[in-house]
Amino acid sequence: MARRVSHEGAECPVARAVDVVGDRWSLLIVRDAFDGITRFGDFQRSLGLAKNILASRLKDLVGAGILEIVPAADGSAYHEYALTEKGRELFGIVVALRQWGEDHLFADGEPHSVLLDATHERPLQRLQVIDAEGRPLKSTDTFVRKVIH
Amino acid sequence: MARRVSHEGAECPVARAVDVVGDRWSLLIVRDAFDGITRFGDFQRSLGLAKNILASRLKDLVGAGILEIVPAADGSAYHEYALTEKGRELFGIVVALRQWGEDHLFADGEPHSVLLDATHERPLQRLQVIDAEGRPLKSTDTFVRKVIH
Repeated sequence: MARRVSHEGAECPVARAVDVVGDRWSLLIVRDAFDGITRFGDFQRSLGLAKNILASRLKDLVGAGILEIVPAADGSAYHEYALTEKGRELFGIVVALRQWGEDHLFADGEPHSVLLDATHERPLQRLQVIDAEGRPLKSTDTFVRKVIH
Repeated sequence: MARRVSHEGAECPVARAVDVVGDRWSLLIVRDAFDGITRFGDFQRSLGLAKNILASRLKDLVGAGILEIVPAADGSAYHEYALTEKGRELFGIVVALRQWGEDHLFADGEPHSVLLDATHERPLQRLQVIDAEGRPLKSTDTFVRKVIH
């Protein structure tokens, strides 16, 4: 991507995170990994993505320590991609994207997939931004303190 | 972007959300808007982005109903970009990206900007994915139910 600029040295954690996962394909690969997809061919079928682009994104995600290559669960010669602990901790980001999408990108009554808890098969609660005492915060109740040099 | 594929018809809310904001520049523009940036020149200085790309991303965000164009607060001839309600509700996504970045993309003791609540100037609590009863959930405690046709 010609306009790729690295924020690796940025002091803003959002910028660094976006540098690693702020790409539509990377985010969708991570979503698929949460949904249990592990193999190249299955990612490809799910995403309808050109092989070379998929291979490049998977390589980047492995390089970033978000996915790791593991032997196939069935003992075959294939290898599989599994989320690392760092990758699994992207769950909140994927849930936040899902909830915002549910709220704003579907017409009333338009069907969409739902995320349920495995024990009771009920929808999750909404993610809430809260202060140290648990009070809900809007963006305007917060501010960013920059690093002082 | 040559490989742009629309997920507008997708049944997965994550895919639709990623379609609208799953782009590094869009996410950073939204972050800047939360930080109070409103003017083209200020976005440009903050992001170091070519004017044509910034203009295109701002247009897309306005088109998606995330930003709106408003008269300049100082009464000058400039116009400004303000987050809509739909845009402000992206806050959880930006906070999730920030917290993941803080956890995984900085060395111990490496300085980074922090998000504080405006009243007490204390760091926020971590976002938690919780079930209907408030029990914390990991990704493996959940599953996605697809739409049945």
